[in-house]
Amino acid sequence: SNGLDWPGSTSTMLASKLGRFVEKQLVYRQTFVIRSYEVGPDKTASMETLMNLLQETALNHVMSSGLAGDGFGATQEMSIRKLIWVVTRINIQVDRYSAWGDVVEIDTWVDASGKNGMRRDWIIRDYHTQQILTRATSTWVVMNRETRRLSKLPEQVREEIRPYYLKRFAFSTDDTEKINKLNDDTAKNIRSGLVPRWSDMDMNQHVNNVKYIGWIFESVPMKVLEDYTLAGMTLEYRRECLLSHVLDSLTTMEEEPSIPSELESTHLLRMQADKAEIIRARAYWRSKGLNT
Amino acid sequence: SNGLDWPGSTSTMLASKLGRFVEKQLVYRQTFVIRSYEVGPDKTASMETLMNLLQETALNHVMSSGLAGDGFGATQEMSIRKLIWVVTRINIQVDRYSAWGDVVEIDTWVDASGKNGMRRDWIIRDYHTQQILTRATSTWVVMNRETRRLSKLPEQVREEIRPYYLKRFAFSTDDTEKINKLNDDTAKNIRSGLVPRWSDMDMNQHVNNVKYIGWIFESVPMKVLEDYTLAGMTLEYRRECLLSHVLDSLTTMEEEPSIPSELESTHLLRMQADKAEIIRARAYWRSKGLNT
Repeated sequence: SNGLDWPGSTSTMLASKLGRFVEKQLVYRQTFVIRSYEVGPDKTASMETLMNLLQETALNHVMSSGLAGDGFGATQEMSIRKLIWVVTRINIQVDRYSAWGDVVEIDTWVDASGKNGMRRDWIIRDYHTQQILTRATSTWVVMNRETRRLSKLPEQVREEIRPYYLKRFAFSTDDTEKINKLNDDTAKNIRSGLVPRWSDMDMNQHVNNVKYIGWIFESVPMKVLEDYTLAGMTLEYRRECLLSHVLDSLTTMEEEPSIPSELESTHLLRMQADKAEIIRARAYWRSKGLNT
Repeated sequence: SNGLDWPGSTSTMLASKLGRFVEKQLVYRQTFVIRSYEVGPDKTASMETLMNLLQETALNHVMSSGLAGDGFGATQEMSIRKLIWVVTRINIQVDRYSAWGDVVEIDTWVDASGKNGMRRDWIIRDYHTQQILTRATSTWVVMNRETRRLSKLPEQVREEIRPYYLKRFAFSTDDTEKINKLNDDTAKNIRSGLVPRWSDMDMNQHVNNVKYIGWIFESVPMKVLEDYTLAGMTLEYRRECLLSHVLDSLTTMEEEPSIPSELESTHLLRMQADKAEIIRARAYWRSKGLNT
């Protein structure tokens, strides 16, 4: 059995329709078929698609655990305290992108991160070959949804999630090197005046984390987008973005494209008005000539 | 049985993993769970999501029929002749939008449309209640993928698809009224300088049909987006859009928002440079106060 409890069952739980717990309930696993509109010009799943699927798996994990409160992945004890999760950092490394119709299996689990944070990791495998395609790790803290201020992790919330902690790392080597902050002088490419669209908003009325990736790419040279595959990226989220904000996208390629087989780039998304940081990012690219 | 043949089966056919034929093979049916990132600020599936699911169902229909050639929904006889399908018109009417976690069932079928066209209809139902949520119809013609010129429907292609024709209409009353062409004088709202993003491109290196909807909405007053639900729209596709094009989005609301419970709007997407038409559209809106 693959554990799927598809429509037609008597269960009305969202959870049971989607995925299942494995490894003594510590790992949540869900399969997805890559859809036609989730692949980009390369005919493979885009980075946005992968990040969307990671988000979906994480939310279903919380739903399936029975911990879900009234928010977007928040637990019951968090909802009582008006707390929500905010992501501060994601590192994703992609060995191979899937094609339209491919089936992927995503595992996710959580662990403590420092005193007030939570770490969430993911591994994406090809369902049929079980080859690992993508690894990702992320760090989360809690914020008061009314004051929008970060909060300590209340002991009651820690007690809720502790039974799910699993000390396992998707990566053996995380990308923890500091990301330089670009400015008008150090950025080689700047694209100004990016405006969130109504359709970029998520159900919390905020710009969905994943949408930022498209804006980061807006200042990446077309030659890089065409000739290179995004091998991985680290995103540091600094500030929320609302519908009314106008953004600048800054990029510096650390090497000249078309020479090396691998490239590294540094990025900044900031408010246009006061230049306040929204996201710093670093990305790794490999030449499409190297693809297997 | 719900007909799903999920991963774990010995079949490697994409088709069998996704949907199935019903009604003597004339209707193709596929179920979907609405994902967290497919819902918008209203917490319901966006119009883009519905259009994406319609596209996915149509492509899987062609794949499952065994007719698929090397293109994006093209048949074998079309591929031999370097022909591709292009959509010229879509009319979609939404009674109710689904929420995150809802399961929808989509039926699709095709019929002849005039001498050289094909009609494709869809009905979206709530899987559990079988209530009809959305109806849609579309018209398609064939184009030579190299010359980019429209072509007659070759007899051999007609022979391929004729066995699948079903004389049934998703609507009893299609929205066939002419859509007025807006210009700088007749448009009440104009948003200029819209630039397709790399992530807006589909696997054919063109702007995906669905992406246009977001640009159309860019010139709709925020008050309408906030206070009204899109009840339906008709899109007339006039010209292809490539990555390098810069667009203008024009909108005229036929009534003043905040007074009536229903609104109608007219739209034009055009090239900024030569004002050539890309899409004309008409949309219908109902006040959120009327939602059930």
